[in-house]
Amino acid sequence: MAAARTLRIGLIPGDGIGREVIPAGRRILEALPSSLGLKFSFVDLEAGFDTFKQTGVALPDRTVETLRKECDGALFGAVSSPTTATKGYSSPIVALRKKLDLYANVRPVKSVAPSPAYPEPIDLVTVRENTEDLYVKEERTYDTPDGPVAEAIKRISTRASTRIATMAGEIAARRARVRQSLGDNTKQALVTVTHKSNVLPQTDGLFRSASFAALAQQRFKDAGVKVEEQIIDSMLYKLVLQPAYYDVIVAPNLYGDLLSDTAAALVKSLGLVPSANVGDGFAIGEPCHGSAPDIAGKGISNPIATLRSVALMLDFLNEEEAAARIYKAVDGNLAEGKLLTPDMGGKARTDEVVEDVIRRL
Amino acid sequence: MAAARTLRIGLIPGDGIGREVIPAGRRILEALPSSLGLKFSFVDLEAGFDTFKQTGVALPDRTVETLRKECDGALFGAVSSPTTATKGYSSPIVALRKKLDLYANVRPVKSVAPSPAYPEPIDLVTVRENTEDLYVKEERTYDTPDGPVAEAIKRISTRASTRIATMAGEIAARRARVRQSLGDNTKQALVTVTHKSNVLPQTDGLFRSASFAALAQQRFKDAGVKVEEQIIDSMLYKLVLQPAYYDVIVAPNLYGDLLSDTAAALVKSLGLVPSANVGDGFAIGEPCHGSAPDIAGKGISNPIATLRSVALMLDFLNEEEAAARIYKAVDGNLAEGKLLTPDMGGKARTDEVVEDVIRRL
Ligand SMILES: CC(C)[C@H](C(=O)O)[C@@H](O)C(=O)O
Ligand SMILES: CC(C)[C@H](C(=O)O)[C@@H](O)C(=O)O
Repeated sequence: MAAARTLRIGLIPGDGIGREVIPAGRRILEALPSSLGLKFSFVDLEAGFDTFKQTGVALPDRTVETLRKECDGALFGAVSSPTTATKGYSSPIVALRKKLDLYANVRPVKSVAPSPAYPEPIDLVTVRENTEDLYVKEERTYDTPDGPVAEAIKRISTRASTRIATMAGEIAARRARVRQSLGDNTKQALVTVTHKSNVLPQTDGLFRSASFAALAQQRFKDAGVKVEEQIIDSMLYKLVLQPAYYDVIVAPNLYGDLLSDTAAALVKSLGLVPSANVGDGFAIGEPCHGSAPDIAGKGISNPIATLRSVALMLDFLNEEEAAARIYKAVDGNLAEGKLLTPDMGGKARTDEVVEDVIRRL
Repeated sequence: MAAARTLRIGLIPGDGIGREVIPAGRRILEALPSSLGLKFSFVDLEAGFDTFKQTGVALPDRTVETLRKECDGALFGAVSSPTTATKGYSSPIVALRKKLDLYANVRPVKSVAPSPAYPEPIDLVTVRENTEDLYVKEERTYDTPDGPVAEAIKRISTRASTRIATMAGEIAARRARVRQSLGDNTKQALVTVTHKSNVLPQTDGLFRSASFAALAQQRFKDAGVKVEEQIIDSMLYKLVLQPAYYDVIVAPNLYGDLLSDTAAALVKSLGLVPSANVGDGFAIGEPCHGSAPDIAGKGISNPIATLRSVALMLDFLNEEEAAARIYKAVDGNLAEGKLLTPDMGGKARTDEVVEDVIRRL
């Protein structure tokens, strides 16, 4: 038997229910069967609004350095962002994505069961560019006779657009392979490129042309990946009306943020939707939900998004078998529908859901 | 009896089904009962991608000048926008909004009947800032060792934010008045301010603070208008999950574009959703749908969005009674559900729907 691979995972709970779901993520990793030949070691790291209030810094250097030097991957919980501009505060996850060059934010959205609104299964992934667009956060404010005017830069580069579209193509090809291995012929591999190049011919036009160029690579053609495009406003319209049609949707940062939340709404709960922030050889799993201060501390937060984020992180660390185990165990829990948290209409506590998923591993 | 007021209306069909729905708009105006004391004269005007292909200009000066000098209002059909950057082409409706300072884009979305997904009635209005944000279209591209990089400016001013929020407050107050006059106590007047100030504290922060300041005016308090806020990604999420809750949503230009298309999807057809581009003393009614080249020329396009856009234009020209007649006639046609176009699952032609609505005036 091959020596076990040891992965070192940074744990960044952040604020609110982040402190409940990240321990759940650790538990599932520790519970993976030893036959997979995987071991884990963990390091606790700080970031978030609470950290900011205590130390004046939302993302301590130690967190970034430890991730960079010691870790193979990480789990990030959630942060409370003040809606009012708070002097000196800026989102630690946005900063982390840029500092570690985690250039892709991957968010799979999957329906649990057919609903009256969506009888066909929803199973799509948004692949969001994670480092630029308006998230470069270059803003300035100047005075005019009519009062202050503020400007922000939206930046789109060939390099970032090319690599995100390439990743979208790879994900579409991988999904097609998985479907094929399961004998599932329901859909063809498809990447939909979204943009607003009718209004922004240079920036979004560049995203569009770089994406099409990247997706025209022979290996994607060989894998049967079809490529289409949608203007972002129609994309949202069509996403709501016929989500079952879509497979992989690639988007610049801001549109990706909006698309993934809208897609999450179609499956009724942000508590189900995972994400991974992916760079070359590094991935941070991050549930899509927020810090939910209203339920924090009650032990009833939904751990599913985090458990799926753990699986997604493993996928990008090339541990597809371990990932598949977790996905399947989670699907089993949801399909049975007996142990669900209150946001899903159930009565279970966070721990009970985690234990049920562990039993199914 | 007072002398009839004559309104001169510019008709800009544009491309595709715009040529079918704008004549429908004219017919409904001509069919309004004379007891309303309203007369109309019309002037045909050119704009659009076809115009561009014929003349090299998408928005001829004559169109802008005629609207400015002769007209009280206008109806705009739809334009085909090439998704590829086409040298010299830029959207005529975006240009028109800016040239005539039509600073608000008002889009009411109303459900026809309860649906399984949305048992409670949806009745909301998005009020979109219409002149700035990324729509200033200031872009540049520069070379780098990694290939071209493009930038666009997102501009948010105190002045534009203040006036759009003020209009949102006025619309909320007017809607509350109308509901009260109908004895409808189902919802309280509410303006939801949307932004992404957690990422863009200066630009979206300015939109947020200027909006709150404008909505704090005593007259809105007196009218019982409540004010809330939502970060745009959560806004889309909540809009899909509980649209019945919302009343008036005010947003910067781009978010407003995305919100209004998403809201339209909730009522299942863009063919139902009207809009008005509103400035001081001038309004252009514009259906939210596109030019639909796939069905253009077949006489089966849905005229409802245009008929409602005519009513909306009349509202903003202070002809609320005439507007109310049209809304009611349209609601009657939809409630009966016998004469519907194919996009609504019916078999009626455009003309038959228009005639049915006219019968109900
Ligand atoms: C909290 C916020 C800065 C963040 C974003 O906009 O990226 C969040 O919405 C997300 O999608 O992870
Ligand atoms: C066609 C396009 C330029 C336009 C816009 O983005 O404003 C359209 O989507 C709209 O909403 O009227």
